[in-house]
Amino acid sequence: MPDIAPLRDFVQAMTRLADARAPEARWLSEGRDLLAALVARDDWLPEECAQHGPTYRQVLLHCDPLERFSVVCFVWGPGQGTPVHDHTVWGLVGMLRGEEISTEMLPDPSGEGPMRPGRVDRLRPGKVVAVSPSFSDIHTVRNALADRPSISIHAYGANIGAVTRSVFDPATGRRSRFVSGYSNAFVPNLWDRSGEMTAQAAA
Amino acid sequence: MPDIAPLRDFVQAMTRLADARAPEARWLSEGRDLLAALVARDDWLPEECAQHGPTYRQVLLHCDPLERFSVVCFVWGPGQGTPVHDHTVWGLVGMLRGEEISTEMLPDPSGEGPMRPGRVDRLRPGKVVAVSPSFSDIHTVRNALADRPSISIHAYGANIGAVTRSVFDPATGRRSRFVSGYSNAFVPNLWDRSGEMTAQAAA
Ligand SMILES: [Fe+3]
Ligand SMILES: [Fe+3]
Ligand SMILES: [Mg+2]
Repeated sequence: MPDIAPLRDFVQAMTRLADARAPEARWLSEGRDLLAALVARDDWLPEECAQHGPTYRQVLLHCDPLERFSVVCFVWGPGQGTPVHDHTVWGLVGMLRGEEISTEMLPDPSGEGPMRPGRVDRLRPGKVVAVSPSFSDIHTVRNALADRPSISIHAYGANIGAVTRSVFDPATGRRSRFVSGYSNAFVPNLWDRSGEMTAQAAA
Repeated sequence: MPDIAPLRDFVQAMTRLADARAPEARWLSEGRDLLAALVARDDWLPEECAQHGPTYRQVLLHCDPLERFSVVCFVWGPGQGTPVHDHTVWGLVGMLRGEEISTEMLPDPSGEGPMRPGRVDRLRPGKVVAVSPSFSDIHTVRNALADRPSISIHAYGANIGAVTRSVFDPATGRRSRFVSGYSNAFVPNLWDRSGEMTAQAAA
């Protein structure tokens, strides 16, 4: 097990933002800086959370106990991607390993008819982008690499796996409701400090 | 996976107590009632958290992100027990399955010399007892059953696995420092509500 301390520090700082009742603008500035620091290094993610599967995996790393925010690891196998979807809450996407492409999708002005692609972000390790109903909430994401998995770390302003959201048929704009859930029944134990404390005592 | 909702509800109610900056007396009354409700039923503990090992297992179920409290599942194999130990913070012990015996241990009045047993509690399912530096913080606990495992659910007023505590040699009263850590690298995901939400939508 690698040293999980960077994830624990991130969770504690995000909890303090939640306790301060931070408005979205603070999450998108201070939360973004915290996530950027987390994905600036790739030495803390447990191996068990980095496995890819037959479809992309959404591995919960932490959910705030009052469900004010959540932290999720997305693992994209070669060629894997999402349907067109929304979030309904702010979200931050930080690239940890590999590369992914996020394509904003814009509804037809009539409300019906084909959707158009908007902004395209190619994310390389360390890069953070945001989504939100306040500026751009609908996109599709895929692994940019055909020959290996990619991994991004996401934070959202809710227990994202329990939010009723929408997927869209890009050809017609038709919306269907979904609740994503999570791919994992167990999340990392962030709280066993005994290894580092023993190391300190020995130092 | 059984329905984890009772544990999630317990964690959320305990989090609200922590946010209210509850003094110890409230944890020992309201927290005790919450724990009694949790162990009044034995249908929610994931199988993976109920496995016994070569020595007793201390399985973290939840740690408050600000480390104000933690919830731990103790799994005692047949005949297993703890050394004499303290906690340094309030603790609540709720019996879930099987039976255990908790024996309070009293230091020799001189501060050196053999410890004496005090109060003895035999815990049956549904029973909750408390420990605390304010009234009785040193005890030893063992499985009361020789032929099968027993399981109790504990709550403590800190990240108990990271607290520097003491074990005692009952023959001499001699104290040694320890940090217990936890037996598990992964804790249950309490936050996947997608199954119950789909069930609601279908109802
Ligand atoms: Fe997304
Ligand atoms: Fe104890
Ligand atoms: Mg699921």
